[in-house]
Amino acid sequence: MAHNRRTFLQLSASGIAAGACGGLSSLHAATVPPARSKSQTPPPPVTRDLARFLVNSRPDDVPPAVRKEATRTLLNWVGVTLGGCRHETTDIALAAMAPFSGPAQARVLGRSERLDALTASLINGIASHVLDFDDTHLKTIVHASSSVVPATLALAELRDDVDGKAFLHALVLGVETAFRTANAIYPDHYDVGWHITGTVGAIGTAVAAGKLLKLDERQMAWAIGLASSQSVGLRESFGSMNKSFNPGRAAQNGLMAALLAAKNFTSSDGMLEARRGWANTVSTKQDFAQITAGLGSHYETALNTYKPFACGIVIHPIIDGCIRLRNQHALKAEDIEKVELRVHPLVLELTGKKTPRSGLEAKFSVFHSAAVAIIEGRAGPAQYNDEAARRPEITALRDRVTASVDSKVHESQADISITLRDGIQRRVFVEHAIGSVENPMSDDSLTAKSRDLMQAHLSSEKVARLLDACWSIEKLPDAASLATLACP
Amino acid sequence: MAHNRRTFLQLSASGIAAGACGGLSSLHAATVPPARSKSQTPPPPVTRDLARFLVNSRPDDVPPAVRKEATRTLLNWVGVTLGGCRHETTDIALAAMAPFSGPAQARVLGRSERLDALTASLINGIASHVLDFDDTHLKTIVHASSSVVPATLALAELRDDVDGKAFLHALVLGVETAFRTANAIYPDHYDVGWHITGTVGAIGTAVAAGKLLKLDERQMAWAIGLASSQSVGLRESFGSMNKSFNPGRAAQNGLMAALLAAKNFTSSDGMLEARRGWANTVSTKQDFAQITAGLGSHYETALNTYKPFACGIVIHPIIDGCIRLRNQHALKAEDIEKVELRVHPLVLELTGKKTPRSGLEAKFSVFHSAAVAIIEGRAGPAQYNDEAARRPEITALRDRVTASVDSKVHESQADISITLRDGIQRRVFVEHAIGSVENPMSDDSLTAKSRDLMQAHLSSEKVARLLDACWSIEKLPDAASLATLACP
Repeated sequence: MAHNRRTFLQLSASGIAAGACGGLSSLHAATVPPARSKSQTPPPPVTRDLARFLVNSRPDDVPPAVRKEATRTLLNWVGVTLGGCRHETTDIALAAMAPFSGPAQARVLGRSERLDALTASLINGIASHVLDFDDTHLKTIVHASSSVVPATLALAELRDDVDGKAFLHALVLGVETAFRTANAIYPDHYDVGWHITGTVGAIGTAVAAGKLLKLDERQMAWAIGLASSQSVGLRESFGSMNKSFNPGRAAQNGLMAALLAAKNFTSSDGMLEARRGWANTVSTKQDFAQITAGLGSHYETALNTYKPFACGIVIHPIIDGCIRLRNQHALKAEDIEKVELRVHPLVLELTGKKTPRSGLEAKFSVFHSAAVAIIEGRAGPAQYNDEAARRPEITALRDRVTASVDSKVHESQADISITLRDGIQRRVFVEHAIGSVENPMSDDSLTAKSRDLMQAHLSSEKVARLLDACWSIEKLPDAASLATLACP
Repeated sequence: MAHNRRTFLQLSASGIAAGACGGLSSLHAATVPPARSKSQTPPPPVTRDLARFLVNSRPDDVPPAVRKEATRTLLNWVGVTLGGCRHETTDIALAAMAPFSGPAQARVLGRSERLDALTASLINGIASHVLDFDDTHLKTIVHASSSVVPATLALAELRDDVDGKAFLHALVLGVETAFRTANAIYPDHYDVGWHITGTVGAIGTAVAAGKLLKLDERQMAWAIGLASSQSVGLRESFGSMNKSFNPGRAAQNGLMAALLAAKNFTSSDGMLEARRGWANTVSTKQDFAQITAGLGSHYETALNTYKPFACGIVIHPIIDGCIRLRNQHALKAEDIEKVELRVHPLVLELTGKKTPRSGLEAKFSVFHSAAVAIIEGRAGPAQYNDEAARRPEITALRDRVTASVDSKVHESQADISITLRDGIQRRVFVEHAIGSVENPMSDDSLTAKSRDLMQAHLSSEKVARLLDACWSIEKLPDAASLATLACP
């Protein structure tokens, strides 16, 4: 009976039980005991304040440096999406979803298929994340572009009235919102098990799409509410196709949220901060100031970073240093007697595979990585395929690489010493690997990375035009032309 | 620097950072400190065990009483979905999503539109929940049919090879999974803010759809993994259209999960129980035995209940008692001098509106509810529209109703005393209101409820055939005929 009693009381006190239940919130609050001890001070109205900022923001309000970083984010996204466009994960998702797709509104990058804008967002989102080569907000490990950009691009194709300037502006606002909402709940939210890219990704996407749909302040709050109602992604998915599904589905969720809000499909006006709203439900940390403090003056978007190498970030300092030495001294593999690495213990713990036999295993080998860096001067997807893992030239040098651990070396550092057969020693100590906030990839490196990923799927002429379109996005009369250029 | 250090370590240790990261889970587990204190004993493999049971289950394994309850669940769902098919919430969602719909694979109940199976699942799911009149698992407040049935029906329409027996079997397995997964995490999960109907609804839906798609054990585990990756619904949505969106989107999520798994789109094999999987991420309570104990012998599905009245469940004992007295004594409003109610304090706290002026307000008036129960002998949507709230005959009797509170009366009880103008007194004490587990709605009452909801949208002849088809679902050669009958 005790159990029945509790159940009945719960039912009685809940909005569900109270029928359509509009207007009951005050009674509700009075009768339901809090589940966690939460402050009784009303939370700041961050959903409303954020929505107001977003609706009032104009492209020229965004500082040039931030627009530049967003342009780099776009370029990197187009590159990695083309890189993943024929991956098995993308193929299967496309085969499974195409029979349900609506009209041919938007393109799948690098391919001939066209899908409705929602389904295209899913597939391009999956493709953009599947190589684990996309952009990263290092403070929160959010890969924002993998949901924000596919939906924004699909919507641009659908509407045909979105110029490049409006497009980039929407991208900035979407990425900014994803990063800020992530800051409010990280690390608790990530630690407990959420794949944060999928959860805040939908919110950022709804904002970007909502901006292109010209939502008013209340509709923008509803779009945020509907998107934050859909938390996709658990860390247990890592290692399966489900991982790339998360940002893809977040793209779709965010776009759907904005499309519904545009038709006045209502949500809460304060979903982010409400007592049983988003932040309180998905995290034990809620730092609401992160969402609204300095809006319009500080842009978290400027902190986005890009992976130069298609492997675990712990190996990046080693690869960076090996490439530096190679280029500086025109090193050749046959002249090298040995390569000695001194690294943080975690590097060998995570990537200590001495004799990788597949491309996937090679991603977890600091030895393979050092070898390809010296021989090929890069470490992109081509350096981590099965053929590369077995190529005699690479395995021969790999076997001459040794590594020792030293806990005085920081995880972001590396000490590399290369001894040549003639006795000469070349040495470098890497303080901040390329791709970190302190040592960002140059525009040229980003272009090279993207070109590499694009050229397997597009003609050289199209690659050149696409790279140019990305760099000059703010001058494009129609943002949708990006998608056209990104297809064969 | 301390912050950078933490970030870098996190990145290094996380699967995200480690590139494609397959096979890294043991290292990962060794280097990431737990966020909450969780037992280090490996969790039971409930995802696998559940998947095995589901894949091996045959229709005749399910006891007749359980199939009967599932038939009642189906009948109630068809009724409430027709009841909500022209609601503003349904209209807006349909208008927003129709431009993105694929081929005409499945029907929107009560309407002429046809949509792809995924979009139809969303719209029918919204329609079925929007009146707050659907089925309830009282132990966890889950409304399972609002996601399980729309997706299962849409899939039956798509495939055209699903007979009624297989359909009902899939429905049982879906509802059973939703209730069992809910039991594992309730009440913590609900208390913190999740709209549990939307979260476990997707898992149950994936199972039902996966059964019709004849998934093997591993695919079924992946379907569960992909569905449980998509937790839709926060309680802050209550009072807005977002509330009905939750089970609708859960229907779509679950169906998509099963469709992807059928093509071997992979997920974790143990998403429900993994350390950073579903239960640990969405709840502070994880009672895994609830998911697998007694599978095949105990059916939680048999505990489903149905709301007889279209208002908050706290008023149900009053309405039940008033209808009983009315029918027993052929009461007429004009003969009644006064109606005296004795109720638990919560009843007046939640539904004490003395003079409601709209249908929505009437749902929160125990006085209005008593009056319509006596005058009309029912309390369906027609008794809670604006016209009913203002009709002189009803307001006149409503004004002769008084209520006193008595904490000795349980919330599930009510004491009603009606004094007639000739001095005669009629009295009833309601122990368990109709619609509770102890006093379920009769088959006839369920038929009457559904008929009421259907007849605004279908001809009497179609209503009769549809009711018959629901009751004889296991004999239907093609389950999709339900959808045909449910459209004008």
